[in-house]
Amino acid sequence: MPTEEITLENLNPEAFIEEQVAALKNAVGDAVAINALSGGVDSAVVTMIGHKALGDRLKTYFVENGLMREGEPNQIVGWFAALGVPVEIIDASDKFFAALKGVTDPEEKREQGITQVFYKDVFAELVKESGATVLLQGTNYTDIEETAAGVKRQHNVFEQIGIDPEETFGYKVLEPIISLRKPGVRAVARALGLPSDISERPPFPGPALAARVIGEVTREKIATVRKATRVVEDELADSGAFQHLAILHEDMVTGVRGGKRDFGGQIEVRCWESADAVTATPTEVPFATLRRIADRIVEEVPGIVSVTYNIATKPPSCIEAV
Amino acid sequence: MPTEEITLENLNPEAFIEEQVAALKNAVGDAVAINALSGGVDSAVVTMIGHKALGDRLKTYFVENGLMREGEPNQIVGWFAALGVPVEIIDASDKFFAALKGVTDPEEKREQGITQVFYKDVFAELVKESGATVLLQGTNYTDIEETAAGVKRQHNVFEQIGIDPEETFGYKVLEPIISLRKPGVRAVARALGLPSDISERPPFPGPALAARVIGEVTREKIATVRKATRVVEDELADSGAFQHLAILHEDMVTGVRGGKRDFGGQIEVRCWESADAVTATPTEVPFATLRRIADRIVEEVPGIVSVTYNIATKPPSCIEAV
Repeated sequence: MPTEEITLENLNPEAFIEEQVAALKNAVGDAVAINALSGGVDSAVVTMIGHKALGDRLKTYFVENGLMREGEPNQIVGWFAALGVPVEIIDASDKFFAALKGVTDPEEKREQGITQVFYKDVFAELVKESGATVLLQGTNYTDIEETAAGVKRQHNVFEQIGIDPEETFGYKVLEPIISLRKPGVRAVARALGLPSDISERPPFPGPALAARVIGEVTREKIATVRKATRVVEDELADSGAFQHLAILHEDMVTGVRGGKRDFGGQIEVRCWESADAVTATPTEVPFATLRRIADRIVEEVPGIVSVTYNIATKPPSCIEAV
Repeated sequence: MPTEEITLENLNPEAFIEEQVAALKNAVGDAVAINALSGGVDSAVVTMIGHKALGDRLKTYFVENGLMREGEPNQIVGWFAALGVPVEIIDASDKFFAALKGVTDPEEKREQGITQVFYKDVFAELVKESGATVLLQGTNYTDIEETAAGVKRQHNVFEQIGIDPEETFGYKVLEPIISLRKPGVRAVARALGLPSDISERPPFPGPALAARVIGEVTREKIATVRKATRVVEDELADSGAFQHLAILHEDMVTGVRGGKRDFGGQIEVRCWESADAVTATPTEVPFATLRRIADRIVEEVPGIVSVTYNIATKPPSCIEAV
């Protein structure tokens, strides 16, 4: 699919929505389509355009992998319900935690623990049950560029779920926002009437909080980093930063509880200034705010005795630690 | 040994030195004494008082355990040479690294990897070779209190080195500064003419840089944290803080090298405001200084891609991570 970029200057969001709705109607015909909503702006826009085009013939699923932020699944589904778009929550957290057990290598964690489970175990089942032959995906123009540059790997989604599109006539993947970059996607999200919680949503990694745990990912560690993430998002929501995050380290450090030496966990806080995530510098968060974040985390997050703030740039660091 | 504290108000440093020199002469008689100089103010004061009292009959050793800061052994021995006090450097780093191999538990690291090697392997040999029957130790009044409170363990040093003082008549341990707290020791150090690098020396943990490495301690990791320590001490020397340190984490984090994802190490910087190390708060180091420290560390320390700054208090954190 040779794709030409639509720049923000050349984008008319209303006209874009009309064109994509018409294109989807035409491409899907009488078939049933399926898509997964992650809560990010890309999949949210695809969900809205898809429902405008296909109505009930688009089945939208929100896969609860157990790795989301506090209250996230119900919140996201609630926003769509308010817009009249039904989204079904699939609780697949047991499958994800089973696959993540014992996995410490970051790449294995992403690939075997999350991507493979999502496509092979969960989504493949949903495709079969739904009878869908069309898959809507929120691939955007930056994804294509990064795949070309070798930063991301391209997946043939049907191959991922065990369906060979060449042998199995009729299956197809449609990518309504492939010509847009993130600012364009956000403009279309606003034109679609999506709440600003979605249209302006900061990027969040695909593996969700699993990307925020160094070492093996367990339910307990996800619960820990989820609580710390809530504190960081509370305190830095108005920072205007590009991204802010909490990371649970695997290292244990010495702490003091009830006057006695003890070992506990460490949370690292990162807050980034960046235009495009390619380079980034740490935000100069007021020291009093950093201290309040640390005090709240050691108070509110069981097992944590130490909190740090990232002071290195990307490169040579990265936005995420995993 | 029932000890009464000499408070800073009641201390006359010159008179204290005269009294301790006389007491040592009397207690040692014609015997040969031995002591270990660590570079800290306590053992430095004991070395000076000991040499005033005993001259050549005190053998002072500096045990190079391979865990010191950059240039530290030669620098310390040089300061004493300038004062006319001979100190012999014993290179025992192979023994320490052999004992530290595979040890990850912090208590085991301190006890088996460092304390036991120091006393049983290295110092026991020096006592035998020197023919010394008297050991001078820099125990101070705070050490006694902390032992009583269960924070530190009391060691009978001769038991540690395999000599039973009850069975072996004549061995004794003398502790010339046992009635002083740290400020008193520093006042005596100044009166002895020790350079301010020693008299005002910030506390440094017994296990030296091994306390600054999370997980197994190797020569390579010590070299890494040594380079980071130099940067932190350069940049925070004038901070007026109680203590500042660099910690090498065991966790590996994602970095970017030459445009490609890679994994590297993380250095944590801590800088503490404290009166007594019992409670402590992180210093509000200017953000530009923190950023400069981080830039220098990722530039000057091979293998490091990420740098953080501690923002939690003690308690529940501790001054050191190990």
